[in-house]
Amino acid sequence: MKALLLIAHGSRRPQSNQEVIDLAAILEKRADHDFDIVVPAFLELADTLIPDGVESCAKTGATEITVLPYFLNSGKHVTRDIPEVITAIKPQYPDITIRVTEHIGASPVMLDLILQTAANK
Amino acid sequence: MKALLLIAHGSRRPQSNQEVIDLAAILEKRADHDFDIVVPAFLELADTLIPDGVESCAKTGATEITVLPYFLNSGKHVTRDIPEVITAIKPQYPDITIRVTEHIGASPVMLDLILQTAANK
Repeated sequence: MKALLLIAHGSRRPQSNQEVIDLAAILEKRADHDFDIVVPAFLELADTLIPDGVESCAKTGATEITVLPYFLNSGKHVTRDIPEVITAIKPQYPDITIRVTEHIGASPVMLDLILQTAANK
Repeated sequence: MKALLLIAHGSRRPQSNQEVIDLAAILEKRADHDFDIVVPAFLELADTLIPDGVESCAKTGATEITVLPYFLNSGKHVTRDIPEVITAIKPQYPDITIRVTEHIGASPVMLDLILQTAANK
């Protein structure tokens, strides 16, 4: 059973965190066969932190968890903090394959998305 | 002459700001007829702030500036801070059309981009 764990930074502004929660719900509906569930979690400043998100995936029966850092820049959160949290909790889930993807800003498709948004196409 | 002003948050980590500067350079090469120049600027924590970016566009001869908030969430930076800065400086450039687009996270294409990145497609 495949889970996508969408990791955002987290904000003191509850509406910003709710946006990510809503985004995960929409993604789950669109994910088709790629992912059975899409779970939101936050690096900090929110109720559901990364370990909570992994636990939620595990409880739902995930056998594979794809962790996607929903960040634009490859700052220390992406290069250090998220990998460290994942490395630390992996031993608790020996039967689950956990992999971390590139952050969303690293996608080459982002270039087209920026130009489309800017040109209002 | 059309300019795209790409607004990122800005970071204390110079490499993160440099990523945005590099991104703008790549975008300028790809922009074809939509934009003649692509200029990076930052809301805070960087050398080139939004007024500097607008001035740079104006000096290069821009007659239209499209301001794109390179942010994932619609937090106060997107809903309040960036529009406030733009509104405050517009009177200094009466001959330039300045419009602010949606933030990049609001694009419906972002959903596909997340799923593509997650599925490593």
